[in-house]
Amino acid sequence: MKRQLDQASLRALARGCAILGAGGGGDTRIGLLEALQATEDYGPVTLVDLDELAEDELIMPCGMIGAPTVHIEKIENGDEGVRLREHLERLTGRRVAAFMSAEIGGSNGLIPIVWAARIGLPVVDADGMGRAFPLVPQVAMHLAGIDPNPCVMTEERGNVIVFRTISGDWTERLARAAAVEFGGAAASTEYILTVAQAREATVRNTVSLAIRIGEAVAAAETSPVAELIERIGAFRLVTGKISDVERRTTKGFVRGSVVIEGLGDDSGRLIRLELQNENLVALEQGRVTASVPDLITVLDSETAEAIATERVRYGQRVTAVAMRCDPVWRTERGLQAAGPRAFGYDFDYVPVEELARAAT
Amino acid sequence: MKRQLDQASLRALARGCAILGAGGGGDTRIGLLEALQATEDYGPVTLVDLDELAEDELIMPCGMIGAPTVHIEKIENGDEGVRLREHLERLTGRRVAAFMSAEIGGSNGLIPIVWAARIGLPVVDADGMGRAFPLVPQVAMHLAGIDPNPCVMTEERGNVIVFRTISGDWTERLARAAAVEFGGAAASTEYILTVAQAREATVRNTVSLAIRIGEAVAAAETSPVAELIERIGAFRLVTGKISDVERRTTKGFVRGSVVIEGLGDDSGRLIRLELQNENLVALEQGRVTASVPDLITVLDSETAEAIATERVRYGQRVTAVAMRCDPVWRTERGLQAAGPRAFGYDFDYVPVEELARAAT
Repeated sequence: MKRQLDQASLRALARGCAILGAGGGGDTRIGLLEALQATEDYGPVTLVDLDELAEDELIMPCGMIGAPTVHIEKIENGDEGVRLREHLERLTGRRVAAFMSAEIGGSNGLIPIVWAARIGLPVVDADGMGRAFPLVPQVAMHLAGIDPNPCVMTEERGNVIVFRTISGDWTERLARAAAVEFGGAAASTEYILTVAQAREATVRNTVSLAIRIGEAVAAAETSPVAELIERIGAFRLVTGKISDVERRTTKGFVRGSVVIEGLGDDSGRLIRLELQNENLVALEQGRVTASVPDLITVLDSETAEAIATERVRYGQRVTAVAMRCDPVWRTERGLQAAGPRAFGYDFDYVPVEELARAAT
Repeated sequence: MKRQLDQASLRALARGCAILGAGGGGDTRIGLLEALQATEDYGPVTLVDLDELAEDELIMPCGMIGAPTVHIEKIENGDEGVRLREHLERLTGRRVAAFMSAEIGGSNGLIPIVWAARIGLPVVDADGMGRAFPLVPQVAMHLAGIDPNPCVMTEERGNVIVFRTISGDWTERLARAAAVEFGGAAASTEYILTVAQAREATVRNTVSLAIRIGEAVAAAETSPVAELIERIGAFRLVTGKISDVERRTTKGFVRGSVVIEGLGDDSGRLIRLELQNENLVALEQGRVTASVPDLITVLDSETAEAIATERVRYGQRVTAVAMRCDPVWRTERGLQAAGPRAFGYDFDYVPVEELARAAT
């Protein structure tokens, strides 16, 4: 056992998940409130390391799928995880030993804890991305060749769907369409795997990482943004205010763009972020200053709280930062799944540290 | 065993299914070609009566879901039924004894035979509607309170989805969305039931009926339309030509309307048919002359071949006829599921024979 996820660590985790969410993964305020309530009702959830579990035990990656804008208003009823586990165990004939966030970013870093609390299961200190991404197959499990099947989906009314597809792309397509029918968001598990597989096929220690990031930001006494940048080796893209937001919820995604107008030392600069649930690309005068799979996060310039793409609005004083993604995303398969071209952009990925060096 | 479905009876069946399709259920030309080929490859399929099977044996209602316009071009690969049965047997832990058309109307009256041929299973002399309807819960099984779960869906690529929903309406909604993602059409089974249940909860002897109708039309020497009208007690709505067609394929349905301009004795009359996959309502000067759940079918005036809604086109010489639906649709539950108001019309159902009497 690594630790009990008590109320203090959940608050730190929520801050960290928001920052690792790159704008997506769902609003952490909702996820945090649910996690605090579940912890009060059922006791704290145990965070375990994959090395503590037996090799053949089953890990259930899970979370919400759909548009984060919808998730603000369409809240789980809390037993989605129970249902996902029940169906998964019936389908596989095996017991689920622990839950795992499919993505650590945003409220999806918290929701599996809400569900685990209710059943008394632990969550593992790992996730499928080390951040948040919009598409189902954008997980380390996919890169490692883990089967996405069976994917189980449910929602607050109690409907259940099981997908057995010929590829992760088909899982994405069908699950997304179902999420839209459910009103824009649903709960799902896919790419279930054994502990032995998970040790190789996930991004490890990301729950601990998110807690540490959250604690550092909360503890910073003068300049939380500077503290965060130093602590995680982030790159400051611009400090300024939001001067334009174009955002629409369509086909199960939030899409759009945000313009940040530089203030102070950055006066006269204009940075444009393009988004699909998450911030995908940062552009300045047509030049890419950061892009997927690296993380681009918009922070409140005062508090360093991350602002989700669905919460960004005109006039906010923000600092946009970029962070290195997990190395798995910089491999050939990683870039194929989640590099700029996977989102329809016609340019090659350049690591954020190289872009930053070139800019200075 | 009632009979072997040889090539001659399949040809008659196809004619009859088209007439009972009320314009929908899919083009029977495609279904007939597939059934003839399957019969040639695997031998004829046996038609059995529900009374010949043991009470606790399992019947699998099945067919295609989606827009008939799509089905003309997007053809099954033939093993959809095999896959549906495999998954259904694994999910229920029981053996499927026979296939049944979820709807006898259109190619859906033939497709289960195509699939059954490949596995050597019989088909039962019954279906879920006695006609074709656009929506999943518009089956006699729903009226009898049979559970729609599990619904299994597949398509030519090999993807499989299992739905376990809280209602037939949710099955319809989710299965329709999935069919749209699959390109507009897919294969499915839902409302699986035992032989004992099927004896009460289906429309019986409809395969035989369709064959008899098809044989009568084919045998008519002078006036097939008159022969058909007399044989099945149909009501002639109008004889004329198609003067307008408005049709669009949207959200997994064909929707639109057709105008028939009277010729000869009917000169000066204009009949408008409104359609959603099937012909739903016939209107003359704002007056309803026939409506769901009764059947409205457009026949070629020369040959009495039924013309599917997706094949109707300007200039065709046609006779529109209306036929009594199975009594199950005239019950309160039947009208609630498939009466005019179930399709959004603001009028009460009046049986076609009363409308016909009032008109003369």
